[in-house]
Order: sequence, then structure tokens, then C-alpha cells
Amino acid sequence: MKKLLLTLTTLVVATLAFGQKQHPCLLLTPEGVAEIRAALGTNVGFDASVAEVLTEADRSFEEPIVVPVPKDGGGGYTHEKHKDNYYVMYYCGIAYQLTGKEEYAQKVVDILDAYAALYPSLDFHPVTLSKTPGRIFWQTLNECVWLVHTSIAYDCVYDYIAPEKREQLERDFFRPYADFVMNGTKENPANNKTFNLIHNHGTWAAASVGMLGMVMGEEEYIQQALYGSDKTGKNGGFMMQLDNLLSPDGYYTEGAYYLRYAIWPMMLFAQCIEHNKPEVKIFAHRDAILSKAVEALMQLNYNGVFMKFNDALTKQLDCQELLFAVDIAYNAYKNPMLLDVAQRYQNKFIPCDAGYAVARDIAAGKAEPIKLYSAMWRDGADGSQGGIGVIRSVRPDVNSALTLKATSHGLSHGHYDKLVISYYDNDNVVLPDYGASRFLNIEAKYKGHYTRENKSFAMQTIAHSTVTVDGKSHFDGKIKESSKHHSDVYYFESGDQRSIISAKENAAVKGVKMHRTVIYDDVEWLQYPLIVDVFRLESDTEHTYDLPFWYNGHMVSLNFPYTKALTTMSTLGDKNGYQHIWVEAEGRNEQSSTSCYTFLEGDRFYSISTATTPTTEMKMLRLGANDPDFNLRPDGGYLLRQKATNHTFASTIESHGVYNLQVEKTANAKSSVKDVVVVVDNADYTIVRVDFVGGQSRTYCLANRNPEGDHKVKAGGKTYKWNGVWAVE
Amino acid sequence: MKKLLLTLTTLVVATLAFGQKQHPCLLLTPEGVAEIRAALGTNVGFDASVAEVLTEADRSFEEPIVVPVPKDGGGGYTHEKHKDNYYVMYYCGIAYQLTGKEEYAQKVVDILDAYAALYPSLDFHPVTLSKTPGRIFWQTLNECVWLVHTSIAYDCVYDYIAPEKREQLERDFFRPYADFVMNGTKENPANNKTFNLIHNHGTWAAASVGMLGMVMGEEEYIQQALYGSDKTGKNGGFMMQLDNLLSPDGYYTEGAYYLRYAIWPMMLFAQCIEHNKPEVKIFAHRDAILSKAVEALMQLNYNGVFMKFNDALTKQLDCQELLFAVDIAYNAYKNPMLLDVAQRYQNKFIPCDAGYAVARDIAAGKAEPIKLYSAMWRDGADGSQGGIGVIRSVRPDVNSALTLKATSHGLSHGHYDKLVISYYDNDNVVLPDYGASRFLNIEAKYKGHYTRENKSFAMQTIAHSTVTVDGKSHFDGKIKESSKHHSDVYYFESGDQRSIISAKENAAVKGVKMHRTVIYDDVEWLQYPLIVDVFRLESDTEHTYDLPFWYNGHMVSLNFPYTKALTTMSTLGDKNGYQHIWVEAEGRNEQSSTSCYTFLEGDRFYSISTATTPTTEMKMLRLGANDPDFNLRPDGGYLLRQKATNHTFASTIESHGVYNLQVEKTANAKSSVKDVVVVVDNADYTIVRVDFVGGQSRTYCLANRNPEGDHKVKAGGKTYKWNGVWAVE
Repeated sequence: MKKLLLTLTTLVVATLAFGQKQHPCLLLTPEGVAEIRAALGTNVGFDASVAEVLTEADRSFEEPIVVPVPKDGGGGYTHEKHKDNYYVMYYCGIAYQLTGKEEYAQKVVDILDAYAALYPSLDFHPVTLSKTPGRIFWQTLNECVWLVHTSIAYDCVYDYIAPEKREQLERDFFRPYADFVMNGTKENPANNKTFNLIHNHGTWAAASVGMLGMVMGEEEYIQQALYGSDKTGKNGGFMMQLDNLLSPDGYYTEGAYYLRYAIWPMMLFAQCIEHNKPEVKIFAHRDAILSKAVEALMQLNYNGVFMKFNDALTKQLDCQELLFAVDIAYNAYKNPMLLDVAQRYQNKFIPCDAGYAVARDIAAGKAEPIKLYSAMWRDGADGSQGGIGVIRSVRPDVNSALTLKATSHGLSHGHYDKLVISYYDNDNVVLPDYGASRFLNIEAKYKGHYTRENKSFAMQTIAHSTVTVDGKSHFDGKIKESSKHHSDVYYFESGDQRSIISAKENAAVKGVKMHRTVIYDDVEWLQYPLIVDVFRLESDTEHTYDLPFWYNGHMVSLNFPYTKALTTMSTLGDKNGYQHIWVEAEGRNEQSSTSCYTFLEGDRFYSISTATTPTTEMKMLRLGANDPDFNLRPDGGYLLRQKATNHTFASTIESHGVYNLQVEKTANAKSSVKDVVVVVDNADYTIVRVDFVGGQSRTYCLANRNPEGDHKVKAGGKTYKWNGVWAVE
Repeated sequence: MKKLLLTLTTLVVATLAFGQKQHPCLLLTPEGVAEIRAALGTNVGFDASVAEVLTEADRSFEEPIVVPVPKDGGGGYTHEKHKDNYYVMYYCGIAYQLTGKEEYAQKVVDILDAYAALYPSLDFHPVTLSKTPGRIFWQTLNECVWLVHTSIAYDCVYDYIAPEKREQLERDFFRPYADFVMNGTKENPANNKTFNLIHNHGTWAAASVGMLGMVMGEEEYIQQALYGSDKTGKNGGFMMQLDNLLSPDGYYTEGAYYLRYAIWPMMLFAQCIEHNKPEVKIFAHRDAILSKAVEALMQLNYNGVFMKFNDALTKQLDCQELLFAVDIAYNAYKNPMLLDVAQRYQNKFIPCDAGYAVARDIAAGKAEPIKLYSAMWRDGADGSQGGIGVIRSVRPDVNSALTLKATSHGLSHGHYDKLVISYYDNDNVVLPDYGASRFLNIEAKYKGHYTRENKSFAMQTIAHSTVTVDGKSHFDGKIKESSKHHSDVYYFESGDQRSIISAKENAAVKGVKMHRTVIYDDVEWLQYPLIVDVFRLESDTEHTYDLPFWYNGHMVSLNFPYTKALTTMSTLGDKNGYQHIWVEAEGRNEQSSTSCYTFLEGDRFYSISTATTPTTEMKMLRLGANDPDFNLRPDGGYLLRQKATNHTFASTIESHGVYNLQVEKTANAKSSVKDVVVVVDNADYTIVRVDFVGGQSRTYCLANRNPEGDHKVKAGGKTYKWNGVWAVE
């Protein structure tokens, strides 16, 4: 009782001392806490999330506090322990706010004390793999994430701690910590560069220092976080990051996987800014760019899993970052489709004002089904650096997505795969992007970092379903060169019956112009929409063009004779990713001018039919050569190789049939495409005719460099006339 | 109106003409039809199943009736069309009963007419792959399945057809058809052998003829179906099949996959017998053997998918056979756990008396959760031919199953894999059995039959997680020899903390005695239960013992140096299945006497730790060599090879840790087993000690040939004393 009185007194004194500043002020507010406390026991979903917080907080009392001297990299003991510690503080801080039980608050204080005792003795972390090494962690990035969580915890228990104790903690620990994050040390000031960097590491740094500043009432930190070290807003800071990291469509240049990561500190910090500096109108900033970024994340996924471009692991909409992003975005923008995402994929809520708002409004029946649509997501701060086109099925019985990537490089996490396609159908990833070679936090796997094979294979062009020229990756695998250029979206249009994405790349390979067009066409006589894939290559000199289709599934048939590697197997090449690929089989097609490969994935068949000649080489690929540490997956690929000056790979990709073992029913197991014929192909026009087994034909007319106006082409006694980029007859 | 009157008259006449014989009399009864009709619209699940019947029936009116001249094998056009036709008749027949709409009945009659017109002109099917070729299908088996469905349809519309028309159909079509199924032709009487065979093909034949006989009122057919061609019950027939095909535990010697197939005609025919010959008391026969068979199917599955032994594809509890089996078994035995299976895995009901009873009683809340338990499923008609042991986890947070197969060969679908283990955990098949190499009904894949690789790989011993001796399959891959023998269950015991299966095989390899014991032990200091696997081999002469663990998942680490195949890869051997295996890497362990392999499957780690010496060779395997048609899956294996006279492979198999990408949490990723030590190993005793990283030890004492009495063994200054087969200290 005495202690309680003392605490209450402290509370009042604290409130008075800082004028109108109230705590908590970051994710929780006094009003929010009151609303949540009043609602406890009334919302099953939110109650479960609160229960999880309390369970995690309570669990921390089972073991003594351990704040080890930093030693291990990602996945190692000290790394994981320091992560555990910030989670414990985070959970205990929130638990204190929701229950008022002081043991939670005291746990936070005790852990802070332990860090305050250890921190002054720390030099740089002994693991020296990062250019911006931290002290507690091997890289400062983790140090920032630690500070974000710890600031939230500190905010929650701020009023519990006596002012003089706070002063000591801030002076001896928090201020040196923030200074290190902002400025590094005299010997290694690299952190300062990162703090002002237009990069997600910079966002974490800004958010961590800014959030600490809000709790401490240190305006200087807040200003530097928002406007950079020099506070001008011209050389760094959160506002500049928002203006430059995201495209006008909310796309982040590294891809969906890293947008997922970048959005976390953005939304966290934005929520804190809204609570502490509403005058900034952060959620309205740049035409509500944060809403667009969350929208891009909602769209750039298939069945709740983020589409893979560039470095990417398998992350879903229920990952921790998206819990924050969705809840905070809903609280800010009240888009009812976010409620659908929350209930369909997450079913968890962050234990704060925003999370409660989502749980409350789901319970009130305000959710509306998310609509997935075809769109071009522009890349580049001004939207001028190409983009990623996504075509979505519109038929209720079809769940497919087709993507064509024609962006800029994507910073350090970019891969050399201009004009790559991916295809998702029937709940499976049919034509996958390999993503990254990384076993996150598994120490035995290169300490959880990107493996060597990420660079030697996953980043290389041959790892992707696009054309590699002369066995060399785009831009010869040089990021400096690749970063200077971007592909260009030539045309994008979507409709109910058919959609098209067309893009060009003229810089990736010197002397070779690349132009790929994919059409998604719901052909009336086919079971499922057909993809027509036209990949044009133009050059004055002869090259070897390799177009692989990496696929998931089991080989069913090839319509030409092939030689299978039976007793020994060797590699496709010796560098640029080729060294990692076993050649399982090879063949040529002398019987037909269309080569067809059929495979089975899930309970559906897929057939790739390509116009070929007897000079076209086909190879069946299997990943895994030159992989001493077993880091690669044994994925399969189907490669078309053509030596030529100009060449166009014209293919159809069919989804067809059913393979139902439960009722022992197999239907429509064979391709319906009889022939793919390139009728016309020159710099101006490409006309591709697809003949079907049923006797029907469909012709796809493309204007290759004049997107507008009337076109007229005579070929084979026929005249093709159309207006604009494309026509289908 | 005139027609309706005529029909009603016909109905009355028909009923009178056959005395008390009422139709329908197979799956539906007049009382059942009345109950179902009255309940339409009141049971969502059953209504959906009825709606499906009507949809299928209605769909048949969109296309003309086609009864093609037989030409294609399984998966081909005529094969699938004849299958479609019996489904159309089946659906239309039932639709007629449920709605009374005559167009459905007429559709059945029209199709029957078409068959009656075609049938007399048919010789044997042109595809000559079967020893018992059919006329409509390439094998008589399909002909029987056709007749089962058609009999049901005929039963449903029997009263709709005028007697003289029935007489004509029966005389010109049904009787010749039944005669062919029962007797074949003079030139090829093979069907008669099958009709009397103790084999699931015999069951289909008996059921088809018996069901037709019940509809037609032809007692001769019924008697022959029940008691064989000679009606004695001693040389064939359904009753003898029930007595000999199933073990006293309801296990079927070919395995769960074929029990699933065999149970279909058994339950169908049993239901018809119950409706037409209740005096046979078919469901009580042989201590309710049909109930036990269904129970075996419920138990021999993991997450609703049948466990694979011998020839097996991926079949689930919602396959069409199990819809019939579960519904009919519930109707007969009223086991409330069957309702749980129906609602949890099937959510579909057969549109007849039994299916309605299930739907009705689920709605009435009578379902009880299915209990999966550890058990030994004996093989052989009298239960004396070994068996399959299954250990199930009992902890609510663990979902695992461990199996040891020690059965007889399993007829023509048996594989040469005595003492093989499989392991299921965390919703994944961790140590799989390859099952069959077959792409059912995919014509491009060897016409949908078992592929050549089924014999050359899937059936061979090396394809399984058991010991291959000197590179030769058990019984040298000779079915005749293998069929003479069976393994013996030495011991089986299950408990809450630990369970054990122990079995011996002395005939599979001349001069080598094999004895495998698996213990599933919920060790207190481990996260999940530990498997201890002790495989003893005894011989006077030196042999090469190969023990592979085939696994699903991605390699994480090996605790010894190894050489990886980098630029070329070759095979493990040149015959007996070895020719299909690429050697990805090999190594020996000179640093530690325990070799450990850790891999990742799903979000969990698995470690296999084995007592080895520097003479033990370890190899990493990848399936796919010598596979010209791409029929094999690229599965992975970890092989231990030891040259020795006597040798014991003592291993632990751990399930541990978590790999959660969504919250970026990796924990307990390393094996907790430091050492596996074989302390004592002789003909009488094997004692294995497992030392853990945390400093604990656990010793497993096994009496190898005296299952009873007190045992005392001195070793290394310690005395081990225990009573019975095993002890753990």
C-alpha cells in the first residue's frame, strides 16, 4: 500500500514535471488502455492476443534474467537471448499497462538495469561480418530493432519508474545507445551514414531513435529521426525515406519480401508520430503513401504468401511485421478489406490501440472481402523505373496470378532477372521464382546468413524463367551497372476476358534488345485461361539464348525424343549459376515445329508449347550441382536453347485437366495446343497463331514499337489489321 | 398422364409378379427412400450430397449417349467413357428414386439399351495387358466395377421398366455379361478362376454377380456369389473371402492402400446381403470382421492419408471407397467414431440409406472423436503371419506415428522390405515409404499402370528404410520365395511414456538373422519423444549391410566431413534398385563414434544419430538415375554402410526445435544426443546407452531371445538387471 501510494505520487509528479506529456504515448495511449481494459473478456480474438501477451510475460518469471556478453551471430545463443530479452520487456511493458500489475513493470526495469550495467563495457560485437557492426548484436540493424521494442516497453513503464531512476537510465544507457545508433563511434562512424540512408536500415534507425525521443520527451531525437541528422529533411530522415523508398504505387524496389520488412518500422513509427505529432499528418503524407504500401503488400501475395522477386524467403500475411502493418493501417485508414486480411490470414492482433480497433470492428461485422486485381506496380520514387505487372484471374473457379518483372535492380537484394515471369495457379506455385538461398537463423547453414549459393545461383539470371544470353547473367552480374538501368513497361491492360503485360529491356545484355509480352487469355474452348508468352530477342550478331521455365511438379511427357542421363550426370556449365545445374536430359524436335512439355502439379496438368526448329535444343534441368553444403533445393527446370541473331520464343502455357486420386479420375491430361506458329516477326510486328487440337485457331497480333495507331500487316495471303498495341482474332 | 398411369400399372404388376420382392433392394430400400425424401431440405450435408447426385445426373442430359467400341486402356478415351457411363446410370438411377422424375429412369434405360446393342458384338478387349481381359474394359476387374454400379442403377429403375423389356435386357445382356464375369469364355476361362479367387478381384466379381442376382431375383447368382461357383463355400465365394482375405484384426495382407480398395466391394455387397438375406447375419460374421477391417483403415492412416506399405498411392479417408465403407459400417455397427471420420475427413455422404443415417446422426450430435492408438495389426488369415506395429503419440502437443512392418509378403502388391520403419510427425511424413511408382490413369505414364520402376526400384529393398544385405533385395527379389515366409513379431507393448515394437526376420537373407527393435520414449528432458532404433544383424560370414533412412526435408548438417559430388554424379550400384540412386555425397566419421545427420522438414528439425566406427561409410542419396521416363521422384536418403559378420545399427531419431519464418524464430536446432553407445551386443542381449548433451544418460536393455524371466548382464563394471524383454534406465 505504501509502495502503491508512492507510485501514484511518482505518477503525478512525473505527469506534472513534463507538462502535457502523457504515457504511454507510442502504440498505446491512456485512452486506448482504458478502452481495452473495459473491453477485456468481450472479444474472443483480442482476448486471445492479450492472453498470449500475458503468457509470454508470465513465462519470463520462470527463468532468471540473463544478459550475456555478446558473442554469437544470427541464430546463436547470445543473439537469440538478446532478442528474447527485448520481447520479454515488450510483453511485460504491455502486460503492465493492461493489468496494472507492478511485477511486470519491475521486470522491465530489472532487465533495463542489467543492460545499463553491461552496455558501457561493450566494444563492437566480435562477429565482424557487417559494415555497421553493433555492440549487442553483430549488426546495428538488430540494435535498432532492439531499441524499437525496448522503447515501447520503456514507454509502458515510464510512469512506474521514479524520475531520478529514469534520469540515470537515460543518461548512462539510453542516450549513449541512441548516440551509437545515430552516429556510431569516432573510429567507425558508419552508423551515421545508415541513420541518414534512404534504405530500410535507415528507417529502423530513425524509428528507434525517434520512438525513444518521444518517450523521453527529447525533441532533438524526434527532429533528427524525422528530418535526418542535420534536421533539414534534405539529407535523410523518415520523411525523406517515405518520399524515396516507395514508388507512387507503394511498391518497394527490393520486392514484396523486403517491403514486408520495410513496412514494419514505417508503420510503427508512423503510429507513434500520429500519437505524438498529429500536426505532421503522417498518414496523409504523399497522398497517403503508407496506405498504398500496405495495399501493395495485400496484392503482391498469392494465398497469403508474398510473391517472390529478388531475395525472398517464404513469408506470409501472418508474419509479425504484417500484424503491425495491417492493424495500424486499419486504425489510420479504416479500409474494411484490411479487416478481411486480419481475420482470414492473421487472426491475431497487436496488443495496442490499433489492434483492438481491428478486433472490435471485425466483431462489429465491418469486414469486407479483399479484392485481388490485375495491376502494374510501378517502381522508382517517381514511378518511372519500370514495374511489376500482375494479372489475376477473374473467374470464380480459377485462382491464378501471372507476374512479369520489369523493374530496376532492387538495391543489394536485387537479382539479375529482367523480364522474368512467375505463375501461380490452383493453390500452387507453378512457375516459381527461386527466391533467396538462405536458412534464416539456422546457424549450421552459414550462420543463418544468405548462403554462398545465393550469389552464385539464386541471383544469377539462369536461376530465373527469363532469357540468359551467351551463358552470362544480365549486366554480367554487376550490381553497379545493373543499378544504373531499369526495364521499361511497354504496355499493360487488364480485362475480364484477357489481359496483357509487355515490357522491354535494352541494357541488360549489350547488343541485344529484349521484349517480352505475356497475354492471359480466357479462350472459350479451353478449360482454363491460356498464357501466351512472346519473348523477342533482337541482335546483329549471333548469340546463344537460353530460356528456362523453372517449375514445380512432376514430368509427365515431352513430345519429342530425348536422351536421359542414366548412369552419370554432368552440369549445364561452369559459371554464372550454370555450374549448379545438372542436365537430366536433352533432345531436339525434328518431328514437329511445336515442342510441348507437360507436367503435373497438385491435381492439375500444365503444358508449355513452344515454336521450335530442329536447331532448338531442349534440356531438362535439376538443381544441385557444385553445392558442397547442400544449400540448394532440387528444383526442376525445362530449358529451350536457340543460337540466333534475332529470335523469338513464342510459347503457350496451358493449365488443364484434373488428376484426382480420391475418385480415381483423370481428365484432359493432354495439351490442347497443336501448334504455335510465329506468322510474322520483325522489329515492328509479331504475329503468333495458336492452332488447337479441336481445329480452332487464335491469332495474337502485337505492334512492337508503335503503341498507338492503326496497323496493317500482310502475311501468308492474309491481312491483319488492328488498332493499338495488340489484337486477338 | 397416360404414360404415368401405364407406369403405375407396370409397377403394381411387377411387384405382384415377384411376390414379396421389392425394389430398390441394394443400397436403397423403399423405407430408406421414404425417410430420405421426407428429410430433404433438413440436413445441409446430406442435401449437398443429394444435390451433387442431381447435378451429375442432370449434366448427363447435356450430351448424347455415347457407348464407344472398346479400344483404350486405363485413362484412355473409351475406358473413361465407359466409366462415365456407369456413373451416369448410377446417378440417374438414384436421382429417379429420390425425385421420381422419369427422365432419369429413362436415361438409365437408354444407356442400358445402347450397351445391350453393342455387347453381343464384342470380343475380348484389344488391349492385351491383362490375364483376365474384359470386353468393355481391358481387364475384367473394371467390368465387375461397371456391373456393381449398373446393378445399383438397374435396381433403382427396375420397377420403371416393363417386365417384357426387363426380360429382354436380362436375356440378351445381363445374363451373358454375368456369365462372362463368372466363367469367361471357352477359349479363355480365366475369369472363372478369378471369380473363385481369394483376392480382391474375386470380391469384385462376387459382389457384381451377387448384386445383379438380387435385383433380378436370380438366386443362383446369389448362391454362387456367396459360396463360389460350386456353391459349397469351400472353393471360393464371398464368405470364404471374408474368412481368408482379412486377418483376425481386420488387416489385409497387401496393406492399407489395398485394404481401402478391397473394403469397397466387401461393404457394398455386405449391405446388399443385409438388405436381401438378413438371415446370413453378414455384419456379425466372423466376430464382426467387417467392423474390424474398417477400424484398421481408420487407424492405418496419418492425418487422414493411408500409411504406405507395399504398392500404395496417396489415398485419403475421403476417397470414394471409404465414403461407402464408413457410411455402411456406421449403419451396421453404429460406432460413433465413424461419424467423426465422416464429418472430419469426408463431409460427403453416399446417397442411400446408410449415408443418410450418418448425416442424420451427425446432425443429432452423436459423433465422438476418433481415438488413434498404438497397436499391432496381425497379418495372415489366422493372425500368425507377423504384423504391422503402429506406435502413436499420446501427448496432446505431439502428432506422430511410428510403424514397423513385419508381415508376410503381401501378394502381388508386396514389396521386399522386411522390418522397414516409417515415421510421421508434425503433420509431415518424415521417414516415408516410397509406395508405388504409378501415375494412375495418366496415359502418358505407361498408360496409367505401375511403371517399370515400380519393380526395378519401389519394390526393391534398398528403396526402403531397412537393411539390404550385399546389395541384394530380400529373398533376392523373388516373390515365390518371399511368399513362403513372413517376419515374426517378437514383442509389442505400448504405454503413455514409452512403447516398443520388436520383430525378427530370419528367411529374407540366407545366413543372416535380422532383428529390429524400435522404442518410442518420451524422455523427460527432450522437447519431443525420442525414437531408439536397434537393428541387429547376425551372420557367420562377412556381408555388406546397407541401412538407408529415406527422408523428406532439407539437409541441415552432418557431424563429419564428406565429399560432395560437384560436377559429375554417378550411381550407387547397377542393379536391385541401386541403379536408380545417385550418390550425392559420401564420408566417414573419424572424429566421433556417433554420426549425426540433421535435416529440416516443415518447421521442425530431425536428427538421426548412429553409433559408427571409422569403417562405417555414410552416403547421401538422391533418387532418379536410370529413369529414362522420369517416373521417379527426386527423394533424398541417408545411408549407413557397414561391412561385418555380426553388426548392430543403433540409432536415435530425434524430433526437435522449431523453424518459424513468420516470427523469425529458430530454436533447439541442434541434436541433443551426444553419443549412442552399444554397451553389450550378443545373441542374448543388446544394451544401448544414449548420452545427451545436457549430461544425462539413458540405457536401453533388450533381451534378444528370451522374452520372459530375469536377466542379468555385467558390462563395463556395471550390472544391468531387468525382467522381461526390455528395460530402460
